[in-house]
Amino acid sequence: MKPQRIDKTERLSRVVVHNKIAYLSGLTADDKSLDTVGQTTQILAKADAYLEKIGSNRSMLLSATIWLRDIGDFDGMNRAWVDWIDKDEPPARATVEAVLGLPDIRVEIQFTVAIP
Amino acid sequence: MKPQRIDKTERLSRVVVHNKIAYLSGLTADDKSLDTVGQTTQILAKADAYLEKIGSNRSMLLSATIWLRDIGDFDGMNRAWVDWIDKDEPPARATVEAVLGLPDIRVEIQFTVAIP
Amino acid sequence: MKPQRIDKTERLSRVVVHNKIAYLSGLTADDKSLDTVGQTTQILAKADAYLEKIGSNRSMLLSATIWLRDIGDFDGMNRAWVDWIDKDEPPARATVEAVLGLPDIRVEIQFTVAIP
Repeated sequence: MKPQRIDKTERLSRVVVHNKIAYLSGLTADDKSLDTVGQTTQILAKADAYLEKIGSNRSMLLSATIWLRDIGDFDGMNRAWVDWIDKDEPPARATVEAVLGLPDIRVEIQFTVAIP
Repeated sequence: MKPQRIDKTERLSRVVVHNKIAYLSGLTADDKSLDTVGQTTQILAKADAYLEKIGSNRSMLLSATIWLRDIGDFDGMNRAWVDWIDKDEPPARATVEAVLGLPDIRVEIQFTVAIP
Repeated sequence: MKPQRIDKTERLSRVVVHNKIAYLSGLTADDKSLDTVGQTTQILAKADAYLEKIGSNRSMLLSATIWLRDIGDFDGMNRAWVDWIDKDEPPARATVEAVLGLPDIRVEIQFTVAIP
């Protein structure tokens, strides 16, 4: 059975669902003039929309990879993150610094999530 | 049941298959004198060979992580990428800059893929 | 069914288990004064403890992402790694350089592993 693909662009699918697991593309903020807290908040709102679209939710997150343009923004990202995650059901996570696709992208997050 | 391991080296397996999902190692080009377009094309040809070996194909790709030595090579990588992927079935993807294992490695790609 | 979450912090779960696959957070050494060989050895001992806790072992590793603070430490990391992995059942792997969460973290490793 073919994986289900959501929000396809020329290069990628924002979400790929296979066997009740969703693989998300690295998400970035639409408003790249925001600081890291603002960008993280926008990314997590995007994630919510995708989770709803596939019939899942924050409590089903399996793992997250977080890239920060400047690791000095670690605390700011974490503030938005801690406000958002399901406190009883946080995903596995790794956070590293990386130069991202555009100079004003300060944070990018990639999720893997289970579907109930 | 033990995962199936293909092309083992002292350090890693190029491909690990478990429950009809294949986890590939980060692939790099054999000819590291090539530019980013050339290296990407070599990597994707390697991926094809592994996909064939495990009875899968480009339409079953779930996700890709792409590391570029210089994020300025984003467009070049994308040209080779767009020529290669199944336009109707693109994987989820994240692309970031990173210094890679050898100075002349300009791009490295890691795939996760389903097996029909 | 909800994923099982082990060693939860405010931000993440060190291990998330779902459908007999475990997703680990990026692991770092407790003693960050150690060199890369020492930090890698500590990380791999931590991984052993988690593998045992979930009823798995080194022969079931699917994939590993390794971030090095300095890619020049590649050989040191590999020495500890080769001593540790199951030589007949090595995981898929990708290794890249990245600035990590604290200045003295020289290596971070994230695993995905199957449970027998």
